Amino acid sequence: MDDWSSLRQRAWERVFRDKEIGYLDPDIFPLLEAFRTRENAFTQSSCSGRITIIDSIFPWSRKHSSVIYKNHLETSVDEFKEILAQRQAWRLWLVVQGPIVHVYAKDESEAWEILRIARSVGYKHSAILTKNYKGTLVELRTGIKMVHLLRENQDQIIHDEELKRIVGISLEVLKEGKKKMEELRLAILSNGNDPVELRENSEGKPEVHDVGGKLP
Amino acid sequence: MDDWSSLRQRAWERVFRDKEIGYLDPDIFPLLEAFRTRENAFTQSSCSGRITIIDSIFPWSRKHSSVIYKNHLETSVDEFKEILAQRQAWRLWLVVQGPIVHVYAKDESEAWEILRIARSVGYKHSAILTKNYKGTLVELRTGIKMVHLLRENQDQIIHDEELKRIVGISLEVLKEGKKKMEELRLAILSNGNDPVELRENSEGKPEVHDVGGKLP
Repeated sequence: MDDWSSLRQRAWERVFRDKEIGYLDPDIFPLLEAFRTRENAFTQSSCSGRITIIDSIFPWSRKHSSVIYKNHLETSVDEFKEILAQRQAWRLWLVVQGPIVHVYAKDESEAWEILRIARSVGYKHSAILTKNYKGTLVELRTGIKMVHLLRENQDQIIHDEELKRIVGISLEVLKEGKKKMEELRLAILSNGNDPVELRENSEGKPEVHDVGGKLP
Repeated sequence: MDDWSSLRQRAWERVFRDKEIGYLDPDIFPLLEAFRTRENAFTQSSCSGRITIIDSIFPWSRKHSSVIYKNHLETSVDEFKEILAQRQAWRLWLVVQGPIVHVYAKDESEAWEILRIARSVGYKHSAILTKNYKGTLVELRTGIKMVHLLRENQDQIIHDEELKRIVGISLEVLKEGKKKMEELRLAILSNGNDPVELRENSEGKPEVHDVGGKLP
């Protein structure tokens, strides 16, 4: 076994170990398994999509920021009420995001092939992040994201009607992400030769516009 | 002049033409100009960061979606009220995003160098999108983003207090993006050898976690 193959094997062993101890996202294993059919790739840190509530000035900050709620599978008005009953330090941001998959490809041609497959099912924010001794690192990402200001401060009152609306739409967004995760799984298994219906329904194409100095 | 140099020259001519006719984002030119100091790169479709309101089921959708408000420089409660007075077809989403810059690098080493510089000032969602006859296309992007459900439907009442809060925070987010745009401009001009203060204040580092199967 060459060096790269043993890196790949160790990465998979780690996935199985993480699965065993419950460290893996609860619903991501079928997707990772699909990638196992590709001899020249292995997955790294990936996320199946999730609903989080973050206490911070800005949701992308690392300083003064803590994740106070996280759920990859579901949520409820009651769970939100529990969070809202607690004291907050900064602002509460509700962040719902689709799946994010990191894959190391043995070489660049494998990286482009994985990107082609992912983009064909709507992973339009996918790209090559870096190259190192593990290979070419690809990030696969959809445009699915909600970053909603849930509560600016403790004094702000959130009525039940509003809470119900926000929770409902968060669940819709989460579900869109899970649909995209399944589409990627099928696309990887079929090597991107998936039935046309799937491609037609996807919002595919990378978000690259070839115009002078401006995004539309 | 070789083929690539004339591609570069035409790209810059287009930027100047776009600037002339007001097609460029109103505040992006100084950043593009900074990139002009790099002989082996030229910018393509880029955005200086903006506040938009989108009428759609989901803000990332292309179908049944229209941008009903866009401002790269500022906004106000009055402008929001005007938008909210109109009929909506789907849902109103408030999307505020930081700058997004697309750069073609002549070769891969120039692409990695640009990525290094951008990441050093917090453009952690930056990556290589594609390679073609124009070179290696790099996207530079921060984590700055707000995707807020503004109004689910026409019946929903938004009180003045809530509107003021949302507009205020949107402006804060927009401003964070503009700060990052200026940081990138300075970093490009100094070739990434910017004073330490700048780097210490930035939330730098690409968002790549080297753990088994899970994002933290």
